[in-house]
Amino acid sequence: MSFHGVFPYLVSPTTQGGDINTAVLGDLVEHLVSQGVHGLAPLGSTGEFAYLSNAQRMEVVKTTIAANRGRVPVVAGVASTTIRDAVAQTEAMVEAGADGILAILEAYFPVGDAGVEAYFKAIAGAARGRPVVLYTNPNFQRSDLTLPVIERLSQISNINYIKDASTNTGRLLSIIERTRGRMEVFSASAHIPACVLMIGGVGWMAGPACIVPKQSIALYDAAQAGDWTRVMELQRPLWRVNEIFARYSIAACIKTALQLQGFAVGDPIAPQVPLDEAARNEVAEVLRSVGAL
Amino acid sequence: MSFHGVFPYLVSPTTQGGDINTAVLGDLVEHLVSQGVHGLAPLGSTGEFAYLSNAQRMEVVKTTIAANRGRVPVVAGVASTTIRDAVAQTEAMVEAGADGILAILEAYFPVGDAGVEAYFKAIAGAARGRPVVLYTNPNFQRSDLTLPVIERLSQISNINYIKDASTNTGRLLSIIERTRGRMEVFSASAHIPACVLMIGGVGWMAGPACIVPKQSIALYDAAQAGDWTRVMELQRPLWRVNEIFARYSIAACIKTALQLQGFAVGDPIAPQVPLDEAARNEVAEVLRSVGAL
Amino acid sequence: MSFHGVFPYLVSPTTQGGDINTAVLGDLVEHLVSQGVHGLAPLGSTGEFAYLSNAQRMEVVKTTIAANRGRVPVVAGVASTTIRDAVAQTEAMVEAGADGILAILEAYFPVGDAGVEAYFKAIAGAARGRPVVLYTNPNFQRSDLTLPVIERLSQISNINYIKDASTNTGRLLSIIERTRGRMEVFSASAHIPACVLMIGGVGWMAGPACIVPKQSIALYDAAQAGDWTRVMELQRPLWRVNEIFARYSIAACIKTALQLQGFAVGDPIAPQVPLDEAARNEVAEVLRSVGAL
Amino acid sequence: MSFHGVFPYLVSPTTQGGDINTAVLGDLVEHLVSQGVHGLAPLGSTGEFAYLSNAQRMEVVKTTIAANRGRVPVVAGVASTTIRDAVAQTEAMVEAGADGILAILEAYFPVGDAGVEAYFKAIAGAARGRPVVLYTNPNFQRSDLTLPVIERLSQISNINYIKDASTNTGRLLSIIERTRGRMEVFSASAHIPACVLMIGGVGWMAGPACIVPKQSIALYDAAQAGDWTRVMELQRPLWRVNEIFARYSIAACIKTALQLQGFAVGDPIAPQVPLDEAARNEVAEVLRSVGAL
Repeated sequence: MSFHGVFPYLVSPTTQGGDINTAVLGDLVEHLVSQGVHGLAPLGSTGEFAYLSNAQRMEVVKTTIAANRGRVPVVAGVASTTIRDAVAQTEAMVEAGADGILAILEAYFPVGDAGVEAYFKAIAGAARGRPVVLYTNPNFQRSDLTLPVIERLSQISNINYIKDASTNTGRLLSIIERTRGRMEVFSASAHIPACVLMIGGVGWMAGPACIVPKQSIALYDAAQAGDWTRVMELQRPLWRVNEIFARYSIAACIKTALQLQGFAVGDPIAPQVPLDEAARNEVAEVLRSVGAL
Repeated sequence: MSFHGVFPYLVSPTTQGGDINTAVLGDLVEHLVSQGVHGLAPLGSTGEFAYLSNAQRMEVVKTTIAANRGRVPVVAGVASTTIRDAVAQTEAMVEAGADGILAILEAYFPVGDAGVEAYFKAIAGAARGRPVVLYTNPNFQRSDLTLPVIERLSQISNINYIKDASTNTGRLLSIIERTRGRMEVFSASAHIPACVLMIGGVGWMAGPACIVPKQSIALYDAAQAGDWTRVMELQRPLWRVNEIFARYSIAACIKTALQLQGFAVGDPIAPQVPLDEAARNEVAEVLRSVGAL
Repeated sequence: MSFHGVFPYLVSPTTQGGDINTAVLGDLVEHLVSQGVHGLAPLGSTGEFAYLSNAQRMEVVKTTIAANRGRVPVVAGVASTTIRDAVAQTEAMVEAGADGILAILEAYFPVGDAGVEAYFKAIAGAARGRPVVLYTNPNFQRSDLTLPVIERLSQISNINYIKDASTNTGRLLSIIERTRGRMEVFSASAHIPACVLMIGGVGWMAGPACIVPKQSIALYDAAQAGDWTRVMELQRPLWRVNEIFARYSIAACIKTALQLQGFAVGDPIAPQVPLDEAARNEVAEVLRSVGAL
Repeated sequence: MSFHGVFPYLVSPTTQGGDINTAVLGDLVEHLVSQGVHGLAPLGSTGEFAYLSNAQRMEVVKTTIAANRGRVPVVAGVASTTIRDAVAQTEAMVEAGADGILAILEAYFPVGDAGVEAYFKAIAGAARGRPVVLYTNPNFQRSDLTLPVIERLSQISNINYIKDASTNTGRLLSIIERTRGRMEVFSASAHIPACVLMIGGVGWMAGPACIVPKQSIALYDAAQAGDWTRVMELQRPLWRVNEIFARYSIAACIKTALQLQGFAVGDPIAPQVPLDEAARNEVAEVLRSVGAL
């Protein structure tokens, strides 16, 4: 199975009481698939994986898989501080029907290269052949994947993708050049998708695609057609969505935008706080400016 | 109940298979209490709380409480990214018989002051009158407690202590001056205990006290007696223990030292790696230099 | 006068005794202009401005202007911690015949937005109509230009360009969108030139262009022609030059490469140290791989 | 000559036009010496060395030496990015009659241990036997002195002191233990002087001593007498001075306080900005609380 194109990082809708709101999540999945997204990525940063218990995480993934009904690939997030727990999570995700694993290393103490490599290899083994997407986000995770580790991990047969959420686009080109033929790169919201596609990226996995799916797909299609002038025409206004996403707390921002679009996804999980009125208005204005409200 | 003196941060001994080794933990508790420590703090950083499931954490605390047999106060660590989970953990710890709560805020996204305050207040509420020790470690936790938040939290009747693991000793004096009569300060291993005691601290909660309990108590007793010349004579050689603790991964360092002292506490939890031979020899040499091996 | 295309950041060649080697600098200028570069930028980071006295800086600029003989624009670096000294430097550069000013703010204590703005405005005033290029490098300078400050500075009639040396390419698009029609963006070596050109950049100012001028110009020409496939064919191998530039100390790296190409530019200024043998070999290998040795 | 006790970091008073105000500097020196300070340290961070030309720096040191009239040792700051300039500065300071050198390494590019060591050794050589005080301030300088480098530098016969302006007091004890008999430690304002004196420090060099000289000396005398209870009684209120010094821009804070005390030292050098009204009132209130206004 090949992953490419636009994969929204799904939010994890919650009720007032703090439970997963499976009904709203199902509606969101139906909406995004019907808009034409190429895949779904529950339990990324935007999905607040760091704020959910393992049971809640399973509920999110199972709900996503059920609502998707096999139409597009579902890449489920696995995140832990320990190899043991990461393997257990991966096995459960595969069991539940995930088409791929988005692998995230959480850390409390610093981890050396050997530990990082062992962690991702263990997940790849537990994924039983399903593709693994490495996910590295130096802003929020206390660990990072060095180029030599990425190069070595790309030798593992089912570690086929990487999503790097640094803001350093040059690093993506370094990865592409070193892993050609073995690993493909997805853009994060911190990069300009137009640039990542031009240097050889295969798509993007990011929170903003939840709220501007059609616009994201149009940009991707223009890039596929090699029409870079058109790509940049679409990219310029869309970049404002990434800007607000970077300025405000990620989950709060996307949940606010989805509420404005009619999805009752609830507030970000406490002690995170919802956006204030001014920020909410700014989000609305940006959505209107790109025809998403 | 008043907390003061030397509270070792207990390691969490594990078996080869990754389960909690309750027998070894029981022996360690017996050893430390018999050496005269003033309290026990399971599930601090040294206790690898970030690498344990909630069930394993409960097992560690219950084992500690059972082995302690009411001789000294047990202050149990509670750490989470969400208020909901932190409250549930606190209730379970209180239920199990913990005498106090060491409260830790984990974070993935940045948290503002309001969120930080709400988190610790919720734990204080759930602790049903038991004293709460705020624990802040800017090196490993992606959140920090500002002075105004600490001052406001000190107004809560059962938030009575703080353990600050920054290396900034001046910050402790600022806290002491602002919260006099409401909050007491414990030193972490990143501070010089002699200094913290002189400026008004009431003790220290730290990993190294696991491996040099008698020496730590002697220093505390000299400070209580106001004999600062003696305090510094004891402090100088002991500082080497803190230095290796800072240089090497904390859990790996203390677990290695305890193995050398005859406690089969196992390796740090993977993907953490054990100390190499050279580091192990250095730990042994330092232990010998202070009469702890 | 419009600035666009490839502007090498010139190294500042020195003799064994530490004086400016004007003969070698003249040769380098002649070489680069004959290769077709669109402009010259003495006293950027690569030019070790931070290691030169004001008198030495003037010598570098005067030598560059003399050797250039009016063929391409010369944009001279001005860097200081104080407004007073920056204004004096600017006046001297204009007097000496510089066609534009590359403006750099050095800082010891943190500077607020008002101070940053005042500093660059003062330089613009002293430049007497010559274009000013803002230069921000958060890796090495203890100050940064926020988007609101950049937007305000773009209102000054002769602040027309910015060179941002963060690795965050998305930030460039944010700047372009906010300052359209008033300010143009140059790429630094930390960005992928192909990407910066596609999003609307007008060229790049960077150290590597000293050692691969022809290859840099070919890439720029392909971008001007809108042939993005060709741009990427040229970009891929060239990116290795940027990678070694990022890995090794900048001045040491470019000075080594120029020595290999036959320019006796000397060592980086002490206490900087020259590259060791292994690094020197790697630089040579990269130069050969792109036909620059 | 032995350095110990309270060495105020002198501010560098300036006129409206930006020249050194030698008259006011002379008055300040007379005032501080008559209050009993043990030495004077022109051109530290508080002295805004980073904002002065070499000629202005010489003027500050010569004025200080003349006004001091040999009563206490004058330790003059030398700061540069290059060895060549640092040596020239040192020679000029010695020539002018400085009793010791406060040695500071400025950096633009990162410097390795070998470069750091070479820099300070060169200054020690140029000081012709006069004592050198290493000064490291990781907050503002882009370089740091590692423990192994400090240990090696302590072997040089006239590198006898270090002033570490990190906030990490434990690091001072590590330095003391490693360099015993060869190097003495001075506290910076970021440490609690009472603590530094207890662990073996010989005094403090810091900006706040400019505005509370008598109070600082009283604390030092109590420590010399071994009366730690009295030391802490004096330390507690004085710590507020360090707190405001840390909160506000250093030069702005001390210059404001001196203006309040009647010294027309002028504003911090632009683009630094003076304190606003609220901060000025807070400084005044703190001065009053310790009897310094």
